[in-house]
Amino acid sequence: MSEQSKVDFPWINGSPAAQGGLSTQDRGLAYGDGVFETIRVSRSGPVLMSLHLERLYRGLRRLAIEIDPVLLESELASYPGFKQCGVVKIIVTRGAGGRGYSCENSAPPTRIFTSHPEPAYPSQNYDEGISVFPCATRLSSHRRLAGIKHLNRLEQVLARQEWAGQEYQEGLVLDQYGKVVEGVFSNVFVVKNKTVLTPAIEQCGVAGVMRHWLLQQFAVQGYNPVEGELTPDNFKLADERFFCNSVYGVWPVRRFEENTWPAGPVARLAQKMVSEHWCL
Amino acid sequence: MSEQSKVDFPWINGSPAAQGGLSTQDRGLAYGDGVFETIRVSRSGPVLMSLHLERLYRGLRRLAIEIDPVLLESELASYPGFKQCGVVKIIVTRGAGGRGYSCENSAPPTRIFTSHPEPAYPSQNYDEGISVFPCATRLSSHRRLAGIKHLNRLEQVLARQEWAGQEYQEGLVLDQYGKVVEGVFSNVFVVKNKTVLTPAIEQCGVAGVMRHWLLQQFAVQGYNPVEGELTPDNFKLADERFFCNSVYGVWPVRRFEENTWPAGPVARLAQKMVSEHWCL
Repeated sequence: MSEQSKVDFPWINGSPAAQGGLSTQDRGLAYGDGVFETIRVSRSGPVLMSLHLERLYRGLRRLAIEIDPVLLESELASYPGFKQCGVVKIIVTRGAGGRGYSCENSAPPTRIFTSHPEPAYPSQNYDEGISVFPCATRLSSHRRLAGIKHLNRLEQVLARQEWAGQEYQEGLVLDQYGKVVEGVFSNVFVVKNKTVLTPAIEQCGVAGVMRHWLLQQFAVQGYNPVEGELTPDNFKLADERFFCNSVYGVWPVRRFEENTWPAGPVARLAQKMVSEHWCL
Repeated sequence: MSEQSKVDFPWINGSPAAQGGLSTQDRGLAYGDGVFETIRVSRSGPVLMSLHLERLYRGLRRLAIEIDPVLLESELASYPGFKQCGVVKIIVTRGAGGRGYSCENSAPPTRIFTSHPEPAYPSQNYDEGISVFPCATRLSSHRRLAGIKHLNRLEQVLARQEWAGQEYQEGLVLDQYGKVVEGVFSNVFVVKNKTVLTPAIEQCGVAGVMRHWLLQQFAVQGYNPVEGELTPDNFKLADERFFCNSVYGVWPVRRFEENTWPAGPVARLAQKMVSEHWCL
Protein backbone atom coordinates (compact mmCIF):
# COMPACT_ATOMS: atom_id res chain seq x y z
CA MET A 1 0.00 0.00 0.00
CA SER A 2 1.42 3.36 -0.96
CA GLU A 3 1.80 6.18 1.54
CA GLN A 4 -0.61 8.19 -0.55
CA SER A 5 -3.55 5.92 0.16
CA LYS A 6 -3.11 6.41 3.90
CA VAL A 7 -3.96 10.09 3.81
CA ASP A 8 -7.08 11.01 5.77
CA PHE A 9 -9.25 14.08 5.52
CA PRO A 10 -7.64 16.07 2.72
CA TRP A 11 -9.06 19.57 3.12
CA ILE A 12 -8.60 22.57 0.87
CA ASN A 13 -9.69 26.03 1.99
CA GLY A 14 -11.78 24.77 4.86
CA SER A 15 -13.67 21.96 3.13
CA PRO A 16 -13.02 18.32 2.28
CA ALA A 17 -11.13 18.26 -1.03
CA ALA A 18 -12.60 16.60 -4.07
CA GLN A 19 -10.48 13.87 -5.58
CA GLY A 20 -7.26 15.44 -6.70
CA GLY A 21 -8.38 18.85 -5.63
CA LEU A 22 -5.60 21.36 -6.06
CA SER A 23 -5.60 23.82 -8.97
CA THR A 24 -2.86 23.24 -11.51
CA GLN A 25 -2.33 27.03 -11.30
CA ASP A 26 -1.48 27.09 -7.62
CA ARG A 27 1.75 28.94 -6.91
CA GLY A 28 2.66 26.32 -4.32
CA LEU A 29 3.15 23.91 -7.21
CA ALA A 30 4.52 26.41 -9.72
CA TYR A 31 7.19 28.00 -7.53
CA GLY A 32 7.10 26.38 -4.10
CA ASP A 33 5.55 29.70 -3.08
CA GLY A 34 4.34 28.87 0.41
CA VAL A 35 5.13 27.28 3.75
CA PHE A 36 4.20 24.13 5.65
CA GLU A 37 4.06 22.61 9.12
CA THR A 38 4.01 18.98 10.18
CA ILE A 39 2.27 18.62 13.53
CA ARG A 40 2.30 15.53 15.72
CA VAL A 41 -1.04 14.72 17.32
CA SER A 42 -0.53 12.53 20.38
CA ARG A 43 -3.02 11.17 22.89
CA SER A 44 -2.62 14.48 24.70
CA GLY A 45 -3.47 16.46 21.55
CA PRO A 46 -1.45 18.50 19.05
CA VAL A 47 2.19 18.89 20.10
CA LEU A 48 3.72 22.38 20.21
CA MET A 49 0.79 23.81 18.27
CA SER A 50 1.39 27.43 19.22
CA LEU A 51 5.06 27.25 18.16
CA HIS A 52 4.03 25.65 14.85
CA LEU A 53 1.55 28.46 14.22
CA GLU A 54 4.10 31.10 15.18
CA ARG A 55 6.58 29.73 12.65
CA LEU A 56 3.88 29.42 9.99
CA TYR A 57 2.96 33.09 10.39
CA ARG A 58 6.62 34.12 10.48
CA GLY A 59 7.20 32.29 7.19
CA LEU A 60 4.14 33.86 5.58
CA ARG A 61 5.25 37.33 6.67
CA ARG A 62 8.75 36.68 5.30
CA LEU A 63 7.25 35.77 1.91
CA ALA A 64 4.68 38.61 2.13
CA ILE A 65 1.76 36.18 1.88
CA GLU A 66 -1.23 37.72 3.62
CA ILE A 67 -3.54 35.37 5.46
CA ASP A 68 -6.45 35.96 7.78
CA PRO A 69 -5.40 34.20 11.01
CA VAL A 70 -9.00 34.07 12.26
CA LEU A 71 -10.06 32.19 9.14
CA LEU A 72 -7.07 29.82 9.25
CA GLU A 73 -7.46 29.03 12.92
CA SER A 74 -11.20 28.49 12.68
CA GLU A 75 -10.56 26.00 9.86
CA LEU A 76 -7.92 24.28 11.97
CA ALA A 77 -10.31 24.16 14.95
CA SER A 78 -12.84 22.16 12.98
CA TYR A 79 -10.33 19.94 11.15
CA PRO A 80 -11.01 16.29 12.05
CA GLY A 81 -7.32 15.35 11.67
CA PHE A 82 -6.66 16.79 15.12
CA LYS A 83 -9.20 14.37 16.67
CA GLN A 84 -7.02 11.29 16.12
CA CYS A 85 -3.41 10.35 16.86
CA GLY A 86 -1.06 10.85 13.95
CA VAL A 87 0.44 13.75 12.04
CA VAL A 88 -1.36 16.74 10.54
CA LYS A 89 0.33 18.56 7.69
CA ILE A 90 -0.63 22.17 6.98
CA ILE A 91 0.42 23.81 3.71
CA VAL A 92 -0.34 27.47 3.03
CA THR A 93 0.50 28.76 -0.46
CA ARG A 94 0.13 32.18 -2.05
CA GLY A 95 -2.78 30.74 -4.03
CA ALA A 96 -3.39 30.60 -7.74
CA GLY A 97 -2.61 33.28 -10.25
CA GLY A 98 -0.37 36.27 -10.53
CA ARG A 99 1.54 36.77 -13.75
CA GLY A 100 4.72 34.76 -13.90
CA TYR A 101 6.72 35.32 -10.73
CA SER A 102 4.78 38.48 -9.94
CA CYS A 103 2.31 38.10 -7.07
CA GLU A 104 0.14 41.02 -8.15
CA ASN A 105 -3.49 39.94 -8.57
CA SER A 106 -2.92 36.48 -7.16
CA ALA A 107 -5.84 34.76 -5.46
CA PRO A 108 -6.23 34.39 -1.67
CA PRO A 109 -3.82 31.94 -0.02
CA THR A 110 -4.61 28.24 -0.37
CA ARG A 111 -4.91 26.28 2.91
CA ILE A 112 -4.30 22.55 2.59
CA PHE A 113 -4.65 20.19 5.55
CA THR A 114 -3.98 16.45 5.47
CA SER A 115 -3.89 13.84 8.20
CA HIS A 116 -1.41 10.95 8.26
CA PRO A 117 -0.85 7.92 10.50
CA GLU A 118 1.73 8.03 13.26
CA PRO A 119 5.15 7.45 11.70
CA ALA A 120 6.38 3.89 12.14
CA TYR A 121 9.97 4.56 13.23
CA PRO A 122 11.81 1.61 14.79
CA SER A 123 11.82 1.92 18.59
CA GLN A 124 15.59 1.43 18.62
CA ASN A 125 16.00 4.91 17.09
CA TYR A 126 14.73 6.21 20.40
CA ASP A 127 16.14 3.55 22.69
CA GLU A 128 19.63 2.92 21.30
CA GLY A 129 20.11 5.87 18.99
CA ILE A 130 20.56 6.30 15.27
CA SER A 131 23.22 5.87 12.63
CA VAL A 132 23.85 9.14 10.81
CA PHE A 133 24.88 9.47 7.17
CA PRO A 134 27.37 12.24 6.26
CA CYS A 135 25.58 14.03 3.41
CA ALA A 136 27.62 15.58 0.60
CA THR A 137 24.75 17.88 -0.40
CA ARG A 138 25.39 21.34 1.06
CA LEU A 139 22.74 23.88 2.04
CA SER A 140 23.10 27.15 0.19
CA SER A 141 22.90 30.47 2.01
CA HIS A 142 19.89 32.70 1.77
CA ARG A 143 19.19 34.82 4.84
CA ARG A 144 15.66 35.71 3.88
CA LEU A 145 14.68 32.07 3.46
CA ALA A 146 16.63 30.74 6.45
CA GLY A 147 14.67 29.45 9.44
CA ILE A 148 11.24 29.33 7.86
CA LYS A 149 9.68 26.10 6.59
CA HIS A 150 9.06 27.08 2.97
CA LEU A 151 8.13 24.74 0.14
CA ASN A 152 11.50 24.95 -1.71
CA ARG A 153 12.87 21.66 -0.40
CA LEU A 154 14.95 20.27 -3.28
CA GLU A 155 18.14 20.46 -1.20
CA GLN A 156 16.53 18.16 1.36
CA VAL A 157 15.29 15.81 -1.38
CA LEU A 158 18.82 15.64 -2.88
CA ALA A 159 20.39 15.06 0.55
CA ARG A 160 17.89 12.31 1.34
CA GLN A 161 18.68 10.60 -1.97
CA GLU A 162 22.25 10.02 -0.81
CA TRP A 163 21.37 6.91 1.14
CA ALA A 164 18.82 4.13 0.86
CA GLY A 165 17.77 1.17 2.95
CA GLN A 166 17.76 0.77 6.71
CA GLU A 167 21.41 1.35 7.64
CA TYR A 168 21.04 5.08 8.31
CA GLN A 169 18.16 6.85 10.02
CA GLU A 170 19.18 10.49 9.43
CA GLY A 171 21.78 12.50 7.53
CA LEU A 172 24.06 15.29 8.75
CA VAL A 173 23.96 18.32 6.46
CA LEU A 174 26.56 21.09 6.25
CA ASP A 175 26.38 24.61 4.86
CA GLN A 176 28.56 25.80 2.00
CA TYR A 177 31.32 26.75 4.45
CA GLY A 178 31.48 23.23 5.83
CA LYS A 179 29.73 23.96 9.13
CA VAL A 180 27.04 21.67 10.54
CA VAL A 181 23.50 23.00 10.06
CA GLU A 182 21.04 20.23 10.84
CA GLY A 183 19.76 16.82 9.82
CA VAL A 184 17.77 16.28 6.63
CA PHE A 185 14.49 16.34 8.59
CA SER A 186 15.64 17.20 12.13
CA ASN A 187 17.65 19.71 14.11
CA VAL A 188 20.84 18.69 15.89
CA PHE A 189 22.25 19.34 19.35
CA VAL A 190 25.64 18.64 20.90
CA VAL A 191 26.55 18.70 24.58
CA LYS A 192 29.91 19.74 26.07
CA ASN A 193 30.03 19.96 29.86
CA LYS A 194 26.93 22.02 30.80
CA THR A 195 26.63 23.70 27.39
CA VAL A 196 23.96 22.43 25.00
CA LEU A 197 24.66 23.83 21.53
CA THR A 198 22.61 23.77 18.35
CA PRO A 199 23.75 25.45 15.11
CA ALA A 200 22.50 29.02 14.63
CA ILE A 201 19.95 29.15 11.81
CA GLU A 202 20.90 32.39 10.09
CA GLN A 203 22.02 31.56 6.54
CA CYS A 204 20.15 28.31 5.93
CA GLY A 205 18.28 25.54 7.70
CA VAL A 206 14.96 25.24 9.45
CA ALA A 207 14.39 26.66 12.94
CA GLY A 208 12.54 23.66 14.33
CA VAL A 209 9.86 24.05 16.95
CA MET A 210 11.19 21.14 19.04
CA ARG A 211 14.64 22.76 18.86
CA HIS A 212 13.07 25.98 20.16
CA TRP A 213 11.25 24.22 22.98
CA LEU A 214 14.30 22.19 24.05
CA LEU A 215 16.48 25.33 24.19
CA GLN A 216 13.99 26.81 26.65
CA GLN A 217 13.74 23.62 28.71
CA PHE A 218 17.51 23.17 28.95
CA ALA A 219 17.79 26.66 30.43
CA VAL A 220 15.18 25.73 33.04
CA GLN A 221 17.18 22.60 33.84
CA GLY A 222 20.35 24.60 34.57
CA TYR A 223 22.15 24.01 31.29
CA ASN A 224 23.67 26.72 29.13
CA PRO A 225 21.75 26.66 25.81
CA VAL A 226 23.69 28.16 22.88
CA GLU A 227 22.87 28.80 19.23
CA GLY A 228 26.25 28.98 17.57
CA GLU A 229 28.75 27.50 15.15
CA LEU A 230 29.34 23.76 14.97
CA THR A 231 32.11 22.11 12.99
CA PRO A 232 31.97 18.41 12.01
CA ASP A 233 34.96 17.85 14.32
CA ASN A 234 33.16 19.37 17.29
CA PHE A 235 30.11 17.29 16.43
CA LYS A 236 32.28 14.20 16.86
CA LEU A 237 34.27 15.47 19.87
CA ALA A 238 31.25 16.54 21.94
CA ASP A 239 30.21 14.63 25.06
CA GLU A 240 26.87 13.83 23.39
CA ARG A 241 24.97 14.52 20.20
CA PHE A 242 21.31 14.01 19.38
CA PHE A 243 18.68 14.94 16.80
CA CYS A 244 15.18 16.21 17.41
CA ASN A 245 11.99 17.14 15.66
CA SER A 246 8.44 17.68 16.72
CA VAL A 247 7.17 14.40 15.24
CA TYR A 248 9.55 11.84 16.77
CA GLY A 249 10.95 13.82 19.71
CA VAL A 250 14.63 13.07 20.45
CA TRP A 251 16.96 10.46 18.96
CA PRO A 252 20.49 10.03 20.38
CA VAL A 253 23.28 9.48 17.83
CA ARG A 254 24.68 5.98 18.10
CA ARG A 255 27.02 5.99 15.10
CA PHE A 256 28.65 8.52 12.77
CA GLU A 257 31.49 7.63 10.42
CA GLU A 258 33.96 5.49 12.40
CA ASN A 259 32.58 6.47 15.81
CA THR A 260 29.98 4.84 18.04
CA TRP A 261 28.57 6.20 21.27
CA PRO A 262 26.02 5.13 23.87
CA ALA A 263 23.05 7.42 24.47
CA GLY A 264 24.12 10.12 26.96
CA PRO A 265 22.37 11.58 30.00
CA VAL A 266 21.33 14.87 28.35
CA ALA A 267 19.67 13.06 25.43
CA ARG A 268 17.83 10.91 27.98
CA LEU A 269 16.83 14.02 29.91
CA ALA A 270 15.50 15.59 26.68
CA GLN A 271 13.50 12.43 25.93
CA LYS A 272 12.10 12.48 29.46
CA MET A 273 11.09 16.14 29.22
CA VAL A 274 9.33 15.49 25.92
CA SER A 275 7.51 12.40 27.14
CA GLU A 276 6.43 14.14 30.35
CA HIS A 277 4.88 16.94 28.32
CA TRP A 278 3.34 14.87 25.56
CA CYS A 279 2.63 11.21 25.06
CA LEU A 280 4.91 10.83 22.02
CA MET B 1 -10.64 38.66 -14.89
CA SER B 2 -7.89 36.76 -13.11
CA GLU B 3 -5.07 35.01 -14.95
CA GLN B 4 -6.34 31.74 -13.61
CA SER B 5 -9.57 31.89 -15.58
CA LYS B 6 -7.65 32.20 -18.83
CA VAL B 7 -6.06 28.78 -18.60
CA ASP B 8 -7.06 26.40 -21.37
CA PHE B 9 -6.85 22.63 -21.52
CA PRO B 10 -5.44 21.72 -18.11
CA TRP B 11 -4.18 18.17 -18.55
CA ILE B 12 -2.82 15.82 -15.93
CA ASN B 13 -1.10 12.57 -16.93
CA GLY B 14 -2.38 12.64 -20.49
CA SER B 15 -6.03 13.49 -19.85
CA PRO B 16 -8.07 16.62 -19.28
CA ALA B 17 -7.89 17.42 -15.56
CA ALA B 18 -11.01 17.47 -13.45
CA GLN B 19 -11.68 20.71 -11.63
CA GLY B 20 -8.81 21.29 -9.28
CA GLY B 21 -7.17 18.08 -10.28
CA LEU B 22 -3.81 17.74 -8.59
CA SER B 23 -3.31 15.44 -5.60
CA THR B 24 -2.57 17.25 -2.34
CA GLN B 25 0.17 14.63 -1.89
CA ASP B 26 2.09 15.56 -5.02
CA ARG B 27 5.77 16.18 -4.32
CA GLY B 28 5.72 19.08 -6.76
CA LEU B 29 3.60 20.91 -4.19
CA ALA B 30 5.23 19.48 -1.07
CA TYR B 31 8.88 20.12 -2.00
CA GLY B 32 9.00 21.77 -5.43
CA ASP B 33 10.27 18.34 -6.48
CA GLY B 34 10.11 18.68 -10.27
CA VAL B 35 10.85 20.83 -13.31
CA PHE B 36 8.94 22.96 -15.78
CA GLU B 37 9.11 24.49 -19.24
CA THR B 38 7.21 27.44 -20.68
CA ILE B 39 6.93 27.08 -24.45
CA ARG B 40 5.81 29.78 -26.85
CA VAL B 41 3.48 28.59 -29.59
CA SER B 42 3.57 31.00 -32.52
CA ARG B 43 1.81 30.85 -35.87
CA SER B 44 4.73 28.72 -37.03
CA GLY B 45 4.25 26.27 -34.15
CA PRO B 46 6.09 25.57 -30.87
CA VAL B 47 9.29 27.62 -30.55
CA LEU B 48 12.55 25.81 -29.69
CA MET B 49 10.64 22.68 -28.73
CA SER B 50 13.60 20.31 -28.96
CA LEU B 51 15.76 22.55 -26.73
CA HIS B 52 12.92 22.78 -24.21
CA LEU B 53 12.62 18.99 -24.13
CA GLU B 54 16.39 18.59 -23.82
CA ARG B 55 16.45 20.87 -20.77
CA LEU B 56 13.41 19.14 -19.27
CA TYR B 57 15.12 15.75 -19.52
CA ARG B 58 18.40 17.18 -18.21
CA GLY B 59 16.56 18.57 -15.18
CA LEU B 60 14.78 15.28 -14.54
CA ARG B 61 18.07 13.38 -14.75
CA ARG B 62 19.69 15.84 -12.35
CA LEU B 63 16.90 15.22 -9.82
CA ALA B 64 16.86 11.46 -10.56
CA ILE B 65 13.22 11.56 -11.63
CA GLU B 66 12.62 8.76 -14.08
CA ILE B 67 10.18 9.42 -16.88
CA ASP B 68 9.25 7.46 -19.98
CA PRO B 69 10.04 9.88 -22.85
CA VAL B 70 7.84 7.95 -25.27
CA LEU B 71 4.86 8.39 -22.96
CA LEU B 72 5.59 12.08 -22.32
CA GLU B 73 6.08 12.92 -25.96
CA SER B 74 3.00 11.04 -27.09
CA GLU B 75 0.98 13.03 -24.56
CA LEU B 76 2.54 16.25 -25.81
CA ALA B 77 1.80 15.26 -29.41
CA SER B 78 -1.91 15.03 -28.70
CA TYR B 79 -2.09 18.07 -26.41
CA PRO B 80 -4.48 20.64 -27.92
CA GLY B 81 -2.56 23.58 -26.41
CA PHE B 82 -0.03 23.27 -29.22
CA LYS B 83 -2.76 23.81 -31.82
CA GLN B 84 -3.27 27.49 -30.92
CA CYS B 85 -1.02 30.52 -30.50
CA GLY B 86 -0.03 31.19 -26.91
CA VAL B 87 2.14 29.60 -24.28
CA VAL B 88 2.15 25.98 -23.14
CA LYS B 89 3.48 25.22 -19.68
CA ILE B 90 4.75 21.72 -18.91
CA ILE B 91 5.36 20.67 -15.31
CA VAL B 92 6.82 17.26 -14.47
CA THR B 93 7.00 16.33 -10.79
CA ARG B 94 8.25 13.23 -9.02
CA GLY B 95 4.62 12.35 -8.36
CA ALA B 96 2.82 11.63 -5.14
CA GLY B 97 4.11 9.71 -2.18
CA GLY B 98 7.44 8.69 -0.78
CA ARG B 99 7.97 9.08 2.93
CA GLY B 100 9.01 12.57 3.91
CA TYR B 101 11.87 13.71 1.72
CA SER B 102 12.68 10.15 0.69
CA CYS B 103 11.67 9.30 -2.88
CA GLU B 104 11.51 5.56 -2.26
CA ASN B 105 8.12 4.14 -3.24
CA SER B 106 6.92 7.38 -4.80
CA ALA B 107 4.37 7.16 -7.60
CA PRO B 108 5.18 7.66 -11.30
CA PRO B 109 5.99 11.26 -12.30
CA THR B 110 3.06 13.64 -12.71
CA ARG B 111 2.80 15.39 -16.10
CA ILE B 112 0.84 18.65 -16.04
CA PHE B 113 0.18 20.66 -19.21
CA THR B 114 -1.65 23.98 -19.36
CA SER B 115 -2.22 26.42 -22.19
CA HIS B 116 -2.18 30.20 -21.75
CA PRO B 117 -2.85 33.20 -24.00
CA GLU B 118 0.01 35.01 -25.68
CA PRO B 119 1.55 37.35 -23.11
CA ALA B 120 0.44 40.95 -23.54
CA TYR B 121 3.77 42.74 -23.21
CA PRO B 122 3.83 46.38 -24.40
CA SER B 123 5.35 46.61 -27.90
CA GLN B 124 7.74 49.28 -26.68
CA ASN B 125 9.63 46.61 -24.70
CA TYR B 126 10.66 45.23 -28.06
CA ASP B 127 10.84 48.46 -30.04
CA GLU B 128 12.46 50.90 -27.60
CA GLY B 129 13.81 48.59 -24.93
CA ILE B 130 13.10 48.07 -21.27
CA SER B 131 13.84 49.70 -17.95
CA VAL B 132 15.64 47.30 -15.63
CA PHE B 133 15.33 47.21 -11.85
CA PRO B 134 18.48 46.45 -9.81
CA CYS B 135 17.30 43.61 -7.55
CA ALA B 136 18.74 43.29 -4.04
CA THR B 137 17.73 39.61 -3.82
CA ARG B 138 20.79 37.46 -4.53
CA LEU B 139 20.78 33.99 -6.05
CA SER B 140 22.40 31.40 -3.80
CA SER B 141 24.91 28.90 -5.14
CA HIS B 142 24.02 25.29 -5.71
CA ARG B 143 25.87 23.59 -8.55
CA ARG B 144 23.55 20.62 -8.75
CA LEU B 145 20.48 22.83 -9.14
CA ALA B 146 22.11 25.43 -11.41
CA GLY B 147 20.95 25.62 -15.02
CA ILE B 148 17.87 23.43 -14.75
CA LYS B 149 14.37 24.86 -14.51
CA HIS B 150 13.27 23.29 -11.24
CA LEU B 151 10.22 24.21 -9.20
CA ASN B 152 12.10 25.85 -6.31
CA ARG B 153 11.54 29.43 -7.44
CA LEU B 154 11.19 31.43 -4.22
CA GLU B 155 14.29 33.48 -5.03
CA GLN B 156 12.64 34.63 -8.25
CA VAL B 157 9.38 35.36 -6.42
CA LEU B 158 11.28 37.46 -3.83
CA ALA B 159 13.23 39.30 -6.54
CA ARG B 160 10.06 40.03 -8.49
CA GLN B 161 8.44 41.44 -5.34
CA GLU B 162 11.04 44.20 -5.25
CA TRP B 163 9.20 46.36 -7.76
CA ALA B 164 5.58 46.94 -8.73
CA GLY B 165 3.77 48.89 -11.37
CA GLN B 166 4.80 49.69 -14.93
CA GLU B 167 8.08 51.55 -14.48
CA TYR B 168 10.32 48.48 -14.77
CA GLN B 169 9.92 45.53 -17.13
CA GLU B 170 12.65 43.23 -15.79
CA GLY B 171 15.08 43.01 -12.89
CA LEU B 172 18.82 42.35 -12.89
CA VAL B 173 19.81 39.62 -10.43
CA LEU B 174 23.28 39.01 -8.99
CA ASP B 175 24.81 35.98 -7.33
CA GLN B 176 26.10 36.02 -3.77
CA TYR B 177 29.50 37.25 -4.98
CA GLY B 178 27.96 40.29 -6.65
CA LYS B 179 28.28 39.03 -10.23
CA VAL B 180 25.45 39.37 -12.75
CA VAL B 181 23.56 36.11 -13.36
CA GLU B 182 20.39 36.88 -15.28
CA GLY B 183 17.04 38.67 -15.18
CA VAL B 184 14.20 37.49 -12.97
CA PHE B 185 12.57 35.69 -15.92
CA SER B 186 15.13 36.15 -18.70
CA ASN B 187 18.78 35.65 -19.56
CA VAL B 188 21.04 38.59 -20.23
CA PHE B 189 23.66 39.37 -22.90
CA VAL B 190 26.18 42.18 -23.26
CA VAL B 191 28.16 43.13 -26.37
CA LYS B 192 31.70 44.53 -26.46
CA ASN B 193 33.22 44.87 -29.92
CA LYS B 194 32.58 41.51 -31.60
CA THR B 195 32.20 39.60 -28.34
CA VAL B 196 28.70 38.68 -27.20
CA LEU B 197 28.85 37.58 -23.54
CA THR B 198 26.26 35.98 -21.29
CA PRO B 199 26.97 34.96 -17.68
CA ALA B 200 28.08 31.35 -17.22
CA ILE B 201 25.36 29.35 -15.45
CA GLU B 202 27.42 27.17 -13.11
CA GLN B 203 26.48 28.06 -9.55
CA CYS B 204 22.97 29.41 -10.01
CA GLY B 205 20.55 30.67 -12.64
CA VAL B 206 18.61 29.08 -15.46
CA ALA B 207 20.28 28.06 -18.72
CA GLY B 208 17.61 29.45 -21.02
CA VAL B 209 16.83 27.83 -24.35
CA MET B 210 16.73 31.18 -26.19
CA ARG B 211 20.12 32.00 -24.65
CA HIS B 212 21.40 28.68 -25.97
CA TRP B 213 20.00 29.29 -29.45
CA LEU B 214 21.32 32.86 -29.63
CA LEU B 215 24.83 31.75 -28.65
CA GLN B 216 24.81 29.38 -31.61
CA GLN B 217 23.39 31.97 -34.01
CA PHE B 218 25.90 34.66 -32.99
CA ALA B 219 28.73 32.27 -33.85
CA VAL B 220 27.19 31.72 -37.29
CA GLN B 221 27.00 35.49 -37.73
CA GLY B 222 30.72 35.95 -37.07
CA TYR B 223 30.51 37.09 -33.47
CA ASN B 224 32.51 35.63 -30.61
CA PRO B 225 29.98 34.10 -28.18
CA VAL B 226 31.26 33.75 -24.60
CA GLU B 227 29.79 32.31 -21.41
CA GLY B 228 31.74 34.04 -18.68
CA GLU B 229 31.79 36.40 -15.74
CA LEU B 230 29.89 39.67 -15.83
CA THR B 231 30.19 42.42 -13.24
CA PRO B 232 27.51 45.10 -12.82
CA ASP B 233 30.09 47.65 -14.01
CA ASN B 234 30.75 45.72 -17.22
CA PHE B 235 27.02 45.40 -17.72
CA LYS B 236 26.85 49.19 -17.75
CA LEU B 237 30.08 49.79 -19.72
CA ALA B 238 29.29 47.35 -22.55
CA ASP B 239 28.45 48.60 -26.05
CA GLU B 240 25.01 46.98 -25.73
CA ARG B 241 22.96 44.90 -23.35
CA PHE B 242 19.75 42.98 -23.89
CA PHE B 243 17.55 40.33 -22.29
CA CYS B 244 16.01 37.28 -23.91
CA ASN B 245 13.71 34.41 -23.25
CA SER B 246 11.85 31.95 -25.39
CA VAL B 247 8.44 33.57 -24.85
CA TYR B 248 9.10 37.22 -25.75
CA GLY B 249 12.32 36.87 -27.77
CA VAL B 250 14.76 39.79 -27.30
CA TRP B 251 14.33 43.08 -25.43
CA PRO B 252 17.08 45.73 -25.59
CA VAL B 253 17.87 47.53 -22.33
CA ARG B 254 16.85 51.18 -22.52
CA ARG B 255 17.49 52.21 -18.93
CA PHE B 256 19.37 50.93 -15.89
CA GLU B 257 20.05 53.09 -12.83
CA GLU B 258 21.20 56.51 -14.07
CA ASN B 259 22.00 55.31 -17.60
CA THR B 260 19.92 55.27 -20.78
CA TRP B 261 20.85 53.75 -24.12
CA PRO B 262 19.27 53.37 -27.54
CA ALA B 263 18.75 49.83 -28.86
CA GLY B 264 22.01 48.66 -30.46
CA PRO B 265 22.70 46.83 -33.72
CA VAL B 266 23.38 43.41 -32.13
CA ALA B 267 20.10 43.47 -30.21
CA ARG B 268 18.35 44.35 -33.47
CA LEU B 269 20.18 41.53 -35.25
CA ALA B 270 19.07 39.11 -32.50
CA GLN B 271 15.46 40.28 -32.85
CA LYS B 272 15.69 39.83 -36.64
CA MET B 273 17.12 36.30 -36.31
CA VAL B 274 14.34 35.34 -33.90
CA SER B 275 11.56 36.80 -36.07
CA GLU B 276 12.95 35.17 -39.19
CA HIS B 277 12.84 31.78 -37.50
CA TRP B 278 9.53 32.14 -35.71
CA CYS B 279 6.63 34.53 -35.91
CA LEU B 280 6.97 35.83 -32.34
